[in-house]
Amino acid sequence: MARVKFNFSAGPAVLPEEVLQEASRSVVDCGNTGLSILCMSHRGGTYEALHMEALANVRDLLHVPPEFAVLFLQGGATQQFSQVAMNLAVGKPADYTLTGQWADGAFKEAGKVATVRVAADSRKISPARVPFPSEIKISPDAAYLHVTSNETVDGIQWSAFPESPVPLVCDMSSDIMSREIPWSRFGLVYAGAQKNLGPAGVTVVIVRKDVAEKAPSTLPAMLRYQTHVEKDSLHNTPPCFSIYVLALVTRWVKAQGGVAALEAHNRAKAAKLYAAIDASGFYTGTADKAHRSIMNVTYRLPNEDLEKMFLKEADAAGLSGLKGHRAVGGLRASIYNAMPASGVDALIQFMADFQKRKG
Amino acid sequence: MARVKFNFSAGPAVLPEEVLQEASRSVVDCGNTGLSILCMSHRGGTYEALHMEALANVRDLLHVPPEFAVLFLQGGATQQFSQVAMNLAVGKPADYTLTGQWADGAFKEAGKVATVRVAADSRKISPARVPFPSEIKISPDAAYLHVTSNETVDGIQWSAFPESPVPLVCDMSSDIMSREIPWSRFGLVYAGAQKNLGPAGVTVVIVRKDVAEKAPSTLPAMLRYQTHVEKDSLHNTPPCFSIYVLALVTRWVKAQGGVAALEAHNRAKAAKLYAAIDASGFYTGTADKAHRSIMNVTYRLPNEDLEKMFLKEADAAGLSGLKGHRAVGGLRASIYNAMPASGVDALIQFMADFQKRKG
Repeated sequence: MARVKFNFSAGPAVLPEEVLQEASRSVVDCGNTGLSILCMSHRGGTYEALHMEALANVRDLLHVPPEFAVLFLQGGATQQFSQVAMNLAVGKPADYTLTGQWADGAFKEAGKVATVRVAADSRKISPARVPFPSEIKISPDAAYLHVTSNETVDGIQWSAFPESPVPLVCDMSSDIMSREIPWSRFGLVYAGAQKNLGPAGVTVVIVRKDVAEKAPSTLPAMLRYQTHVEKDSLHNTPPCFSIYVLALVTRWVKAQGGVAALEAHNRAKAAKLYAAIDASGFYTGTADKAHRSIMNVTYRLPNEDLEKMFLKEADAAGLSGLKGHRAVGGLRASIYNAMPASGVDALIQFMADFQKRKG
Repeated sequence: MARVKFNFSAGPAVLPEEVLQEASRSVVDCGNTGLSILCMSHRGGTYEALHMEALANVRDLLHVPPEFAVLFLQGGATQQFSQVAMNLAVGKPADYTLTGQWADGAFKEAGKVATVRVAADSRKISPARVPFPSEIKISPDAAYLHVTSNETVDGIQWSAFPESPVPLVCDMSSDIMSREIPWSRFGLVYAGAQKNLGPAGVTVVIVRKDVAEKAPSTLPAMLRYQTHVEKDSLHNTPPCFSIYVLALVTRWVKAQGGVAALEAHNRAKAAKLYAAIDASGFYTGTADKAHRSIMNVTYRLPNEDLEKMFLKEADAAGLSGLKGHRAVGGLRASIYNAMPASGVDALIQFMADFQKRKG
């Protein structure tokens, strides 16, 4: 295997090089204490300061209003699929927009612990897209309306979130910290960290405090958001290293100019790659143009043999992780926050060269 | 703060120096792939091989029989407190031995999702100890009998596990991999990794497969052991880095000669420290001698002022993490697998010097 120059993995995904360098040093000695970040008590001053900084950075960068709490949990978005419903869909049904594999998972898991309904279903539509506003059945009696902000498998994204009489609950695992969030419409946002926030092992939940408070006190402590609201996510030993790296990533986001600056950067990277695909007459984007993801660019070659050849040669050229999800095949370039423009340029150049040779 | 020479933290706790060095390198470049261990797809070959090695090493080292599955989960022991009961105490009550803070937590959380009963209660007994066999109310109608192998707060440990007509379920967070496990008596063992296995963020569960199978299929996927049994703990993105470090730690345990060798090493370290305490006429062990923990050595000085002074001077001498749990005060030296004999020797020397000056 060639050494990787640019990592297009859908997740766990590329992190900024300076974050990796600092995290690497801290695994041996964190802040010249003589202690590894892996071996520190989570009740000690050094870790606690990093933990509180990470919470504060997420709040600052995403402009989270004071009526929301930021939590660091475990189990990934998949655990949130049911946990959201246990806490929020109490005595009321919850409505789901079905847009692909991840929304599907959220819907199925919530259905095990609550009454769930389909508010819209764009799963079978080709090319892939999210529902139009007119297609969403809005029900004011719902506990919430669930949306999956970005579907990594099909490469589609809600460019604007739906207007809804009930709070939105949103899985933002694959695009959090890549764009601003209109908080007034939201009740809860959740995201596994391993795309834009840090390594796997920590899940960020941002929940309106009055919503968290209403959850049944009979829920197990770890599954009840209110436990973690009250304890600043230090109810038990948190996933300290993942949270530490998240602190470093959020410092890096600040140094880049914040979320708005990254959003502009992300839009430019995606526009350039989509433009190259559209102009090629060789590569074909799979998502509806109005609903294309700025995080996961999915496309096909004229046939599967060429796709296999493309992946092999890309790998040999140090461009890794370009294989599409096994459920749909094809190619996928995941170009999260930490993917530099030079990575996208290298991919575009490789694609042009490949086309010249094989097209 | 002085640089730490020996880290007596109760957890997250000391890890072997060679593990930290290798983990540090892999945060920048894992196995000369050019990819950080933090940025690799969990579906890729490099990570999968490490994941499967970690599972196999736990099985080998603990002599886990084939009828048990080894799982890597998230949420710590605290999540297992309720998860165990959701999966195992279905239509049957579960019995608990109450020995201290951690058994207490397991009992309370299980009580939110199942019928629980007290089989024995040694919490108010002084000096602290676990129940004698004659004190345990054995009930053949129970789904399981829960024991907390080692109580870190009080420094007590089951030196032998109870005989029971129903399977034992055991929280081994603070002594797993420090001694052999008599599997024939067990239905399930769980342990947060952050003492003897690796960093925080991964929880090891070892469950008899026929027990896992019987759990209700209506449980959310993440909370159902069977999901993880069927998917080799790759149902969703696992806490990859914590599992990777666990793989390194288990390699280190093998290089030390395995669990039996570490057990002998641990017993020798603990015996030496307890002997120094008992012979001092100045330091006083808090646990009943027959039930002393070989992992967490708890003791007191003649008064709290001396304890404060001791902690401050120990810290200045590079001996960190010696403060007792806030619930009980005093001193606590956690001497897990990765604490070298030289660390215990340094502590004993410091204790003797301190006594000479202040005793």
